Amino acid sequence: MPATDTVRIRLPDDRNYEIRIGSGLLDEAASWQGLPKAAAAVIVSNDTVAPLYAARLRERLQGVYARVDLVALPDGEEHKDWASLNRICDHLLGEALDRKTVLFALGGGVIGDMTGFAAAIYMRGVPFVQVPTTLLAQVDSSVGGKTAINHPLGKNMLGAFYQPERVIADLDVLDSLPDRELRAGLAEVIKYGPIADAGFLCWIEDNLDALLARDKAVLGYAVRRSCEIKADVVGQDEREQGLRAILNFGHTVGHAIEAGLGYGKWLHGEAVACGMVLAADLSARMGLTPAAFVDRLRVLIERAGLPVQPPKLGTERYLQLMRVDKKAESGAIRFVLIESLGQAGLHAVPDAVIADMLAAHGAA
Amino acid sequence: MPATDTVRIRLPDDRNYEIRIGSGLLDEAASWQGLPKAAAAVIVSNDTVAPLYAARLRERLQGVYARVDLVALPDGEEHKDWASLNRICDHLLGEALDRKTVLFALGGGVIGDMTGFAAAIYMRGVPFVQVPTTLLAQVDSSVGGKTAINHPLGKNMLGAFYQPERVIADLDVLDSLPDRELRAGLAEVIKYGPIADAGFLCWIEDNLDALLARDKAVLGYAVRRSCEIKADVVGQDEREQGLRAILNFGHTVGHAIEAGLGYGKWLHGEAVACGMVLAADLSARMGLTPAAFVDRLRVLIERAGLPVQPPKLGTERYLQLMRVDKKAESGAIRFVLIESLGQAGLHAVPDAVIADMLAAHGAA
Repeated sequence: MPATDTVRIRLPDDRNYEIRIGSGLLDEAASWQGLPKAAAAVIVSNDTVAPLYAARLRERLQGVYARVDLVALPDGEEHKDWASLNRICDHLLGEALDRKTVLFALGGGVIGDMTGFAAAIYMRGVPFVQVPTTLLAQVDSSVGGKTAINHPLGKNMLGAFYQPERVIADLDVLDSLPDRELRAGLAEVIKYGPIADAGFLCWIEDNLDALLARDKAVLGYAVRRSCEIKADVVGQDEREQGLRAILNFGHTVGHAIEAGLGYGKWLHGEAVACGMVLAADLSARMGLTPAAFVDRLRVLIERAGLPVQPPKLGTERYLQLMRVDKKAESGAIRFVLIESLGQAGLHAVPDAVIADMLAAHGAA
Repeated sequence: MPATDTVRIRLPDDRNYEIRIGSGLLDEAASWQGLPKAAAAVIVSNDTVAPLYAARLRERLQGVYARVDLVALPDGEEHKDWASLNRICDHLLGEALDRKTVLFALGGGVIGDMTGFAAAIYMRGVPFVQVPTTLLAQVDSSVGGKTAINHPLGKNMLGAFYQPERVIADLDVLDSLPDRELRAGLAEVIKYGPIADAGFLCWIEDNLDALLARDKAVLGYAVRRSCEIKADVVGQDEREQGLRAILNFGHTVGHAIEAGLGYGKWLHGEAVACGMVLAADLSARMGLTPAAFVDRLRVLIERAGLPVQPPKLGTERYLQLMRVDKKAESGAIRFVLIESLGQAGLHAVPDAVIADMLAAHGAA
């Protein structure tokens, strides 16, 4: 069993926080000490995760806060909306909880995003702590301060940049994760290789079987390295003015798939996995990377049990969905493309090239 | 006619902006130059203000932006809610406007707060410009970066700290302001005296008739001095950790009146005016200020044509409404009290003292 690893996130204005990664952190008293003082804590979770871990977290927090409430939301990306967000706000206001109240996001990326957004806007900001229970949330949504809800017209379209006080990534909670969700989380782990660290991509290829078998030491390293890379990128560009966009490798097509099929059909990680294959293909078509890289990435993603075949939404629908993506500016669709292994950048891609690519993958 | 005055707001991270105050600024090209470049601008206004000024603003902005849209919301504090906010977001997303789009808040405090909040959360932040058309908005809501919407359980309960790119306070637009709203704006002007500048209180007492007669030079000075004081306070405490709370003098009772009667019955400034009289009374009851100050403030507020008699909501209802106020912590109700003329601070007040005060004013 690995010891606790700590990744320190440094932000301007001394808004620093720690990501603690290890086994058994949920039950360790130290995980919950040294947080902002408050009369009340509110655990925000969902119907799936709350029955598994909320009682344990509550017990620990009761040693720190006089009052610990639980708000359990319906599970799923399709509930990452204003109605769910408002349930958190209704509880906070209904119980007259003050502006020092600390929110704890116990769940995956959806719970993390919604709890973070609720914390950002409740009384213009209360503290919150991320307790990610999925691999995806541990390696991705718990770093970087992006919070959001979906809108019928687009994913993550309403949100805020808002940083947690701390992230507690307990590797043991991944034991209860369905296989499909573990694989979806691996998509984001894989992402960090092509965009930032060629050596990490090799390490993933070598350790994929151990990752799928949930070996804690191997998972711990994957989480730590992913958080380090993301923290490094975010630290250079908190508000997504430039560099940070590379973290969206695979996401432009991925978001289109999610929105086009209706949120919740494909898991976010599945859509990103497929989106990475298509973005790699665009990188090759734009003359940036050799075609061999596309094959290498597709093989790894297939080995991880993730989809490489995009849904047949039609070229027009794909273009329309991708144009509303937040990276779009003035009509030109821009993608994160791989410039060389371990390096990525934003590139405008002509509609005709996109159309050819979609046709080649049977998505047109 | 006074020349253009400029108050510079300095914030951390070089997020500085200017408040320009003067006659005729709406039609001056310079007002709209040097803002962030974008393909589109969206004017957010309401049904009352849009017919008066939207066409003129649009004409000016069309010299700068290729596309200028208008979103006109229903007028009134009772529409400062999620439904109205969502109309702005629906327009932005429906038209696939990108994350560089600049929003222009053309209206009073309600439009400023909602447009600012929409700008804060749309794609996690787009630039916005305040064009306040009420005295209240010019002296108060356009400085300080507070944005918010109301919730059925409390006023301004959901929001963000988010700063505009610029504020254009054209004194000429105040000519179309109904008398009642001019007076409501004067409530916030009066506020700056007791909390920060005894000399300014004397100046207001001396110039009240000219202010009510809409003398531009006198209004210009009142707006400038109010913005300076607010900017000074906010500059020392952007996120309302301490000092900034003094700006809420009169607001704890004021918010209770607004919520208790239902938003929109009393104007915000009217509720604050009455709230200042009651908070001054609490200051005297707590032994901080002489009773003569309560009389002096009440006389001035009455001269300004503002209410000094609180609605009879009952003591329990007042206490309940004030407990949900954002300044409340762990049950204790805290008020901004006047410690000496020109100096204020937050003080916890025992329920019994509040009850006596409410009874003395016929509000119990």
